[in-house]
Amino acid sequence: MTAYSELSAHFGRVSALSNALGILHWDNAAVMPKGAAETRADSVALLDVLRHGMATDPRVGDWLEAAANDDGLGPWEKANLREIGRVYAQDTALPADLVEASSKATSACEMRWRKAREESDFAGLLPYLAEVLRLQREAARAKGEALGLGDYDALLNDYEPGGRAAKIDALFDDLAAFLPGFADEVIAAQARRPKDEAPQGPFPVEKQRALGLRMMAALGYDFERGRLDVSTHPFCGGADNDVRITTRYDESDFASALMGVLHETGHALYEQGRPRAYLGQPVSAARSMSLHESQSLLIEMQACRSKEFVAFAAPVMRETFGGSGPAWEADALWRRYTRVSRGFIRVDADEVTYPAHVILRYRLEKALIADEMPLADLPAAWNDGMKALLGVTPPSDKVGCLQDIHWPSGGWGYFPTYTLGAMTAAQLFDAARTADPDILPAIGRGDFGPLVAWLRANVHAHGSLYETDELLTRATGRPLDAGVFKAHLKRRYLGEG
Amino acid sequence: MTAYSELSAHFGRVSALSNALGILHWDNAAVMPKGAAETRADSVALLDVLRHGMATDPRVGDWLEAAANDDGLGPWEKANLREIGRVYAQDTALPADLVEASSKATSACEMRWRKAREESDFAGLLPYLAEVLRLQREAARAKGEALGLGDYDALLNDYEPGGRAAKIDALFDDLAAFLPGFADEVIAAQARRPKDEAPQGPFPVEKQRALGLRMMAALGYDFERGRLDVSTHPFCGGADNDVRITTRYDESDFASALMGVLHETGHALYEQGRPRAYLGQPVSAARSMSLHESQSLLIEMQACRSKEFVAFAAPVMRETFGGSGPAWEADALWRRYTRVSRGFIRVDADEVTYPAHVILRYRLEKALIADEMPLADLPAAWNDGMKALLGVTPPSDKVGCLQDIHWPSGGWGYFPTYTLGAMTAAQLFDAARTADPDILPAIGRGDFGPLVAWLRANVHAHGSLYETDELLTRATGRPLDAGVFKAHLKRRYLGEG
Repeated sequence: MTAYSELSAHFGRVSALSNALGILHWDNAAVMPKGAAETRADSVALLDVLRHGMATDPRVGDWLEAAANDDGLGPWEKANLREIGRVYAQDTALPADLVEASSKATSACEMRWRKAREESDFAGLLPYLAEVLRLQREAARAKGEALGLGDYDALLNDYEPGGRAAKIDALFDDLAAFLPGFADEVIAAQARRPKDEAPQGPFPVEKQRALGLRMMAALGYDFERGRLDVSTHPFCGGADNDVRITTRYDESDFASALMGVLHETGHALYEQGRPRAYLGQPVSAARSMSLHESQSLLIEMQACRSKEFVAFAAPVMRETFGGSGPAWEADALWRRYTRVSRGFIRVDADEVTYPAHVILRYRLEKALIADEMPLADLPAAWNDGMKALLGVTPPSDKVGCLQDIHWPSGGWGYFPTYTLGAMTAAQLFDAARTADPDILPAIGRGDFGPLVAWLRANVHAHGSLYETDELLTRATGRPLDAGVFKAHLKRRYLGEG
Repeated sequence: MTAYSELSAHFGRVSALSNALGILHWDNAAVMPKGAAETRADSVALLDVLRHGMATDPRVGDWLEAAANDDGLGPWEKANLREIGRVYAQDTALPADLVEASSKATSACEMRWRKAREESDFAGLLPYLAEVLRLQREAARAKGEALGLGDYDALLNDYEPGGRAAKIDALFDDLAAFLPGFADEVIAAQARRPKDEAPQGPFPVEKQRALGLRMMAALGYDFERGRLDVSTHPFCGGADNDVRITTRYDESDFASALMGVLHETGHALYEQGRPRAYLGQPVSAARSMSLHESQSLLIEMQACRSKEFVAFAAPVMRETFGGSGPAWEADALWRRYTRVSRGFIRVDADEVTYPAHVILRYRLEKALIADEMPLADLPAAWNDGMKALLGVTPPSDKVGCLQDIHWPSGGWGYFPTYTLGAMTAAQLFDAARTADPDILPAIGRGDFGPLVAWLRANVHAHGSLYETDELLTRATGRPLDAGVFKAHLKRRYLGEG
């Protein structure tokens, strides 16, 4: 066997373990009975240890070295080596005692966070969060040294390979300068028109589910390789060839589950569209978290909050729920699905105000990792940032700096990918429509074929063959900038351009 | 760490892997999308290899040797050592190449069997089944040598630790002498009374499910540590603290799913009742397959086809399905649930004729393992046996020797446990009712508390602390014999005694 084929067989096994973990995770969230939590945690912890042991097997380093001299490899194989090298460098950068300490600290902090959020008690969380932050800094330094990156970039790299804070700063500063004034304008304009009534429920779960399944089918989701289920926190997960999404239903508002299903279907189309010939190999993986989020936002925000989609969907909704009257007209529904308002909670935010929530978190976590700000000052800094970026001040830390699980659970460096994803979605959708002008009209007829074909060819089928910047440049003609996203917002929300 | 605590920690990890495999197996049968089959097979195969590698780790042998001299161990710890030793001896008895060859041969044979059964083509299956049989014989010899057992006993030992063909021969010969004449008598008696009408459907799945859940709750099934779902072949599986059962629904006959749910709930009560303090250790495992089957048959056959249970259940059934009229009277329902008939298919057989199906298979597989009969003669020998034991001749091998998956899939030595289970169920139920005469009257009131309390104390809570014979002797005063089972049949079906 060549060194390359050893590597490929080895990572096929790593992937078989990851797939098992993916199913256990889905099970945990969607169907597991409560009393199984501890038993399940033991199984997952063991599989994690086994997976980590395989991924950091010292033979991988030897094989990588030997395979570097293999002249017979094609572009996919070379890209696979690059990705294996990246994953190996990441996985071996941290000493085992730091991994263990981090895992314990985040478990304890996450548990404490649930109570602290409930009680709006930042002081109670502080020592736990301080320990998590301390270990994140340590990890950032260790990874940074191994990979030749600055501290924050080293954390970012786990989610956004090749991502750099310096680039994100420029993109986010651009947006931050634009958004507050723009949101004011949109909110004022929307306030001038009469408010649309909401469709009146209740909307039975079974009918909502049927609507979701119908839309998933229209989008080209492959039900032979996936499922739709229910969980408290909707997600897209599962395994290769088994891409499962979840949603949650609110019987008084069918739009929340529907938009959630469309969002997760965007993620799922990416996962189902990854190159099948390389499934199991790192080169087949989704390119980055920003690109993943771009696929969900492209479907949910770009495609499915368009007037064209709502014109197609409105009769389907009326038929599903037996709705009639002005609230069920496409125009009225569209205005509801593009309503902008200033809120405290990120996950409830609309397309216009969402980036402000993300930029705030990005700036704060960068300052905390760089030790430029005491952690104890977080609540005040949070509220100042909300005032500056969104014009509102949270009445409590519960709906302020305690609302997200990311920091307590050790997900530092993740937040910026949400808004990078929103910008990427706008840029990709714009390029797709330019390449095929029938894309939006087809969506108006309920036909996502042209859009999904473009995404398959330009994004999904590439897996991790290219770096994010190169993929985006190939697909859209240039690297990411904030321009298309801003133009999209102006067009949709102020009718400009 | 002592050798014992090393062993205990090690088998805790083996069990964490087994639990993961249990959940993947459930997922496969209950919810997995079709297109995931290959990916899933890779994950399961890898976890199987890892589990086998851990279970046969040579350190286990060393620890076992060292722990044998540990004077500080209590009875549970000593029994745990005995069980670890048994599992280790079983798992290490087979050379790796035989395990692999057997796994390949059974995969191929199972696949060929689906087609052969469909086409009633025994000749087409023959070479595949011959290879499986050849490897089973080889495995039997290897295990037999390692464990000091005869060939068939060595296979039986995997399912029925301590079981011996010589004992089973005596029990089954006793039954085989009794059953044909007894079945004739019952069938003649039942033919003399007018046939009861069946309740008329359709019976919607949701209502059947609600009825099943209600009965599970009455039986004391713990929903915090399990679920009820649907699969083609009903089973009880999952993991420690996560004991899941499945059923399948027939909208024209609610009794099939209901009796199936009661049966699997019997298995599940055993699993949920195993000693919690030792979960994850071999000593906490269910004692044997015959004892497992005794728990399902005790609930389904002994308790839930009693007049008392049907008197309690009939009004619940009428309420669930809105049924009324003579077909819904408790007496009429009870006569349907105890109807005896001669059929070709084991899984459709009633309590009286079922043992004949099993005895036939047991005698044939024993002769085949001993090489006392050419495999090519199986169809003729099968049909002769059916005629002798049941008085019917299958019109084709499809409903004859091709009906079961056990032999193609390598489950040689399993069949006798079904009927050992039926006899054990009768003996345990009889002892329980003697110990607590309120058990049956309570069931008539829908209260399974007294029965389950007795089973918990006398069977479930013991796990694998005792050998099967000892457990049964402690619970009923004597080892297994066919007497109580025969008395039960005479009482229920001919009103004798």
